[in-house]
Amino acid sequence: MPKPIDFYFDFSSPYAYFAADKIDHVAMEFGGREVEWRPFLLGVAMKITQNEPLMRQPVKGEYSVQDWDRMARFMKVPWTLPSKFPIASIDAARAYYWIYDTDKTVAKEFARQCFATYFGEGRNISDVDTIGKIGSRVGIDSAELKNAIVEDRIKERLKIETQAAIDTGVFGSPFFIVDDEKFWGSDRIWMIKRWLKTGGW
Amino acid sequence: MPKPIDFYFDFSSPYAYFAADKIDHVAMEFGGREVEWRPFLLGVAMKITQNEPLMRQPVKGEYSVQDWDRMARFMKVPWTLPSKFPIASIDAARAYYWIYDTDKTVAKEFARQCFATYFGEGRNISDVDTIGKIGSRVGIDSAELKNAIVEDRIKERLKIETQAAIDTGVFGSPFFIVDDEKFWGSDRIWMIKRWLKTGGW
Repeated sequence: MPKPIDFYFDFSSPYAYFAADKIDHVAMEFGGREVEWRPFLLGVAMKITQNEPLMRQPVKGEYSVQDWDRMARFMKVPWTLPSKFPIASIDAARAYYWIYDTDKTVAKEFARQCFATYFGEGRNISDVDTIGKIGSRVGIDSAELKNAIVEDRIKERLKIETQAAIDTGVFGSPFFIVDDEKFWGSDRIWMIKRWLKTGGW
Repeated sequence: MPKPIDFYFDFSSPYAYFAADKIDHVAMEFGGREVEWRPFLLGVAMKITQNEPLMRQPVKGEYSVQDWDRMARFMKVPWTLPSKFPIASIDAARAYYWIYDTDKTVAKEFARQCFATYFGEGRNISDVDTIGKIGSRVGIDSAELKNAIVEDRIKERLKIETQAAIDTGVFGSPFFIVDDEKFWGSDRIWMIKRWLKTGGW
């Protein structure tokens, strides 16, 4: 079985939302590969690259808003720019890893639901109550989930995952690693496709 | 005849080099359109977006170097990361507009030769002697060209072109405008293709 593709993302990243809709399909169809979803805190990585969220960048922010809308229309996926954007995605990411440690498949479904709630419906997912409700939609006890994400163990876990992403050279979202090859951006899924088909160049 | 596609770029931009190799073909094949090449000074635009050249951004710079190399191998175009990079592309851009005012086709060929010299061979194109030599390769009198690019009229011309690009919302290189639709990045040529084929969505 070939190595899974690593998919690094922040729950507050529109381009990760678009990529999340495609990457598992591409990985399986062109490479027979699984995808490991690895949420991390992009804000921490951005301190190192001295980058700012797109929305806070003059001119580029306005372009991005149009681009997300156009991308969603092209992909025919639901899209609502959340009134609160970007957000601290820390609780969603902690919840993901807590679920992941029990069931990877459910964790991925939870992540999909987070994206659908935040970017599909435009509803804030930075509060624990919403995280709890999303959890219950994928069969997780919401009270248990809400308790779990404030525990030191899971806080530490997300710190470790974020640091590991940064140490690997991840600086944006989405970011993919195929074997040792790095690909940044939802715009590079076409290249990942070719890489998988050809074995690289 | 449909409106030409505007192709904004800085001569010091690797992704513009890659885009320059493709955009005219895509515009003609999928839209029956000409392409207006519009060099501008990216550094001036970056002051507004508070952006830094890729190479000066930690981690992202290293990724970019790998990405350019991989892109060149994929596209099978010559590639040498210039030892002096990025450069002030002001003289190349001035020369372009001076040639453009006499012959648009020759100006485009001059621009291609600038890209080929800088990114294909890795040779610095920021000095006027090299600009003169590149000019003579496309049939321009090099002494005349070297004199022209220090004239106030052409200096002013580039300022106006750069400001016009910024006023239009251009903030990166390459940047394309198809009718009123903006596309940023060489990675978006696939989307321009679809846009031209379908008339947009």
